[in-house]
Order: sequence, then C-alpha cells, then structure tokens
Amino acid sequence: MASIFSRIASGEIPSHKVAENDRFFAFLDINPVAKGHVLVVPKKEIDYIFDMETSEYAAFWEFAMEVARALKKAIPCIKVGIAVVGLEVPHAHIHLVPMNTMNDLNFSKPKLQPSSEELASTAALIAKEM
Amino acid sequence: MASIFSRIASGEIPSHKVAENDRFFAFLDINPVAKGHVLVVPKKEIDYIFDMETSEYAAFWEFAMEVARALKKAIPCIKVGIAVVGLEVPHAHIHLVPMNTMNDLNFSKPKLQPSSEELASTAALIAKEM
Repeated sequence: MASIFSRIASGEIPSHKVAENDRFFAFLDINPVAKGHVLVVPKKEIDYIFDMETSEYAAFWEFAMEVARALKKAIPCIKVGIAVVGLEVPHAHIHLVPMNTMNDLNFSKPKLQPSSEELASTAALIAKEM
Repeated sequence: MASIFSRIASGEIPSHKVAENDRFFAFLDINPVAKGHVLVVPKKEIDYIFDMETSEYAAFWEFAMEVARALKKAIPCIKVGIAVVGLEVPHAHIHLVPMNTMNDLNFSKPKLQPSSEELASTAALIAKEM
C-alpha cells in the first residue's frame, strides 16, 4: 500500500506543495513546529534515508537545499534547521524548519494549528521564491 | 579566530574522532543526547550549511552517510537520526544520533554525561566499522 507521502505526491491526499520535480517534492507540514515547516520527500518510496542509493541521496539533499534557500527568503528566520527522524512514517523525509530559537526544532512541544488559508498563504510565499 | 570545531579538527582540543578525510571529520559529542551521538563537520569553516558550495555540500552529506552507516552497525538502534540546528556554534555541523525513540533526538532534555573511558570505547566501536 502506498505511504501517506506517496498519496500526497500523487494528489490523492491534498497538500500545500511548495516545490516539485520528477524525483522529489516538498509541502507544508499541516502541524508545524514553526511557521514554514516543510517536509521534503523522494517520490520513490524508501523507508530509511541512509538506504538510498548514493547519487539519489545526494540529489535529495541538493533539492532540499533549493527549498531551504527559498524558505529563508520567504519566512523571516536566522537559519533553516534540518531534522530527519524516521520513526513515524516509513517513507524517508527531511524536515526543514525556519529557526529563530533552539526550541523551534523541538518536536516534543505542542504543534501549531494553522488554518488551511494560512497554510495556503505560506506555501505561496515559499513557492514564489523557488 | 578559529572556531571550537576547527580547534578540535587540528587536534588543539582533544576529541574522540570516529572518521576523517581531507575535507571532513566526525567525532563524538561529549554531552550526547543518546549514546553514539556524533558531530560531522567540514574542515573549511563555514557558518551556515545552506551557504556551502553545492558540490562541497553534497560531499558533506555523502561523508555523513558513511559515518551513519558505521554508526548503525556499531550502536544498536532502529535508525540514525539527523539534526542540523546551527544557532550555537557558527561552524556548520550535522548531528547524527542513534535513535530508538522520538525522544532520542530531543535537544531540550538533559544531556548524558559519559566518562572519557566510555566515549573512547564508543568511538572505537564506530571507527572500527568505517
């Protein structure tokens, strides 16, 4: 069965996409740890990032870099932080989070609950910078 | 003035190194969030990971992949997690953390305080798998 991220990539589950090419896509986390929290995902379903083929893995990080640069232009922050956790959804994904304090990358705190309108507006800001 | 990581790379400050080549090195965090918590650092001092030149950035992630694969062989865990925060030391670095629960990547919790002997033993286990 397709993972939730494959179903988002295919459009079966709607999302607020910010970037996409033939191999990777990026969309907003609907329960962000900070405004502009993006998930970057390979379209080819693989569970563990370090099981990716090396050139695919390098291309994945290069795509994440492009997204992170757009994110920093779109959302005021000191830096864009990175996390890869991998214990919840068995489909590799990179979290990119606009950071202003250490606590912005804390996944244990209560998540934000932006409205669909807020997410759409944030996604448009980021997509415009791609 | 050289960053603390450049001083560690040069050997001016002692560390428990687990891997090194001409451009990158990896050593144990002395206050780990979980046993086997490794920092991966470029020898060329740069503050923000997304300001790296693209090929250097890709090589940095490939080096981190080699370290992560050795780490997973050396330290029992479900996956090796990744974090890049960047608000404390102005020298880009990747945290690699052997993960068994979501909380293993929580930087807000009290850190472990392993002895120098424990760190040396852990570093040797990881280095052996490189």
